[in-house]
Amino acid sequence: MEPADELRLAIIGLGKIARDRHLGAIAGIPGLRLVATADPRSSLTGVPAFPSLEALLASGTGFDAVALCTPSQIRARLAAGALRAGKHVLLEKPPGATVAEIAPLLELARRKGRSLHASWHSRHAPAVEPARSMLASRRIRAVRIEWMEDVRRWHPGQDWIWEPGGLGVFDPGINALSILTRILPQPVFLTGADLLFPGNRSAPIAADLRFTDAHGLDGSAAFDWRPQGPENWTIRVDTEEGSLTIEGGGRRLLEGERLLLEEPKAEYDAIYRHFAALARSGECDVDLAPLVHVADAFLLGRRMLVEDFA
Amino acid sequence: MEPADELRLAIIGLGKIARDRHLGAIAGIPGLRLVATADPRSSLTGVPAFPSLEALLASGTGFDAVALCTPSQIRARLAAGALRAGKHVLLEKPPGATVAEIAPLLELARRKGRSLHASWHSRHAPAVEPARSMLASRRIRAVRIEWMEDVRRWHPGQDWIWEPGGLGVFDPGINALSILTRILPQPVFLTGADLLFPGNRSAPIAADLRFTDAHGLDGSAAFDWRPQGPENWTIRVDTEEGSLTIEGGGRRLLEGERLLLEEPKAEYDAIYRHFAALARSGECDVDLAPLVHVADAFLLGRRMLVEDFA
Repeated sequence: MEPADELRLAIIGLGKIARDRHLGAIAGIPGLRLVATADPRSSLTGVPAFPSLEALLASGTGFDAVALCTPSQIRARLAAGALRAGKHVLLEKPPGATVAEIAPLLELARRKGRSLHASWHSRHAPAVEPARSMLASRRIRAVRIEWMEDVRRWHPGQDWIWEPGGLGVFDPGINALSILTRILPQPVFLTGADLLFPGNRSAPIAADLRFTDAHGLDGSAAFDWRPQGPENWTIRVDTEEGSLTIEGGGRRLLEGERLLLEEPKAEYDAIYRHFAALARSGECDVDLAPLVHVADAFLLGRRMLVEDFA
Repeated sequence: MEPADELRLAIIGLGKIARDRHLGAIAGIPGLRLVATADPRSSLTGVPAFPSLEALLASGTGFDAVALCTPSQIRARLAAGALRAGKHVLLEKPPGATVAEIAPLLELARRKGRSLHASWHSRHAPAVEPARSMLASRRIRAVRIEWMEDVRRWHPGQDWIWEPGGLGVFDPGINALSILTRILPQPVFLTGADLLFPGNRSAPIAADLRFTDAHGLDGSAAFDWRPQGPENWTIRVDTEEGSLTIEGGGRRLLEGERLLLEEPKAEYDAIYRHFAALARSGECDVDLAPLVHVADAFLLGRRMLVEDFA
């Protein structure tokens, strides 16, 4: 990096998530500088723009790291290209279209001495680390997840999300799973799943999951993209010492009925601070557990047809 | 174990694979002894029989290890019960109904000092280790897998295999993937999949996979349960130094057109010799790569409807 403590970033895939979340976070953090974008259809005023990662690399533009914000189906190829060129790589969630594509990237990153980070933005919500600490020593009986939002509001016109590999309702659902796998002291695994596919789509619009752990935890999750009211992003954990509830996707934490914490989310600021620290040390941070649970849901799930989505 | 060098085995799930393969292998290996079976509907003359693992454990019958030959959907619970009771555990393939259920079992096995082995019988076919050695130093360009057999012959009346978690055509296909992931010097990952579901079934009857590796390998696999002729279990690997072909599910190895090796398979003998050695040392041997690829195929795959299977 030059100057020594500046991380020069390029965003690859300048779509909704890049514009809604990444740009603001990068702009607000000292030591980060956006020096280029690569997108075949989109650019920013005043920032050098290229149609592809390949064109960016060929241009000789100096940069240290890429944030991959493209649809997941093409991330593995882009990540490998960036790592081979000696760049650090930040992966938006989900980190890839498959579980198996990540191991070769991790091996490449380590061989090159570069950072690979599979980011899970919801893990940086303010309720997550306090919940993790409180649950560390408790005996957990049950978990109830409700993760419901209006796909028309959150993914307007995003056809790729309905394509194979696009995850459908697991695109938000994996956020819940990323919190779950962070706060529980023991790993869980699925025991059943119902996946609701619109007749005209290749990805589920809703999913009901059952899961457990080595101690017989009673877990369930309901993901649904159809409700049109306010979002419901809730995880309730029942323990022998009472219940803990994460609401608002991690903005609020309650013990029983008592509000312990309510703070605005600054998830992407935290992602970029963490990624900058990783890049300074050349370390990798990749946890695939949330994606493994989604793959398991597709592997194990019973497919059910529901009405077309238009 | 008592006597010191004898491994007393119980078979859990006395179905087709147990009768076709496990019983003969156990009977033929000195130092192994079948002391019980557990199955709600099946038993063997002269061998103490119990309706369930729980009943077997409650009986006080002395034994050291279980071979889990049940449908995969219930293996995690059985494996956990056996490990908690201090038994070594051999898992038939696939090792579970999900990828994530194995990590807690492995942790439990290590805590108990017991062996957990996820067996992949096709890896013990005679062509596999020679192929692995020959490919270790070659640059691989392409892989073509054809894995075709008649489901009516190989899985007569096995309804569970068509249920969610039963894998459908991936039940044989995972054998090909278990060979592939053993013989290639580099890990592969899927880039696309078509999954063909009969209208009246919850699992695919055929699948076409595309895969690659970090060096751009051109890989494809065609799994099909519909052909009624002789089985075709073939993996051809094209390298810069010519092609290597595994035929007959691993019984034959050819370099170009030249037959290098043709031997009868004794896969389950090899599984049990390996498992007995693991049990003596208390070590675990669990490689989930084949199951991860199957989960990835379901995650990434495009579902297509084909004619009902009756």
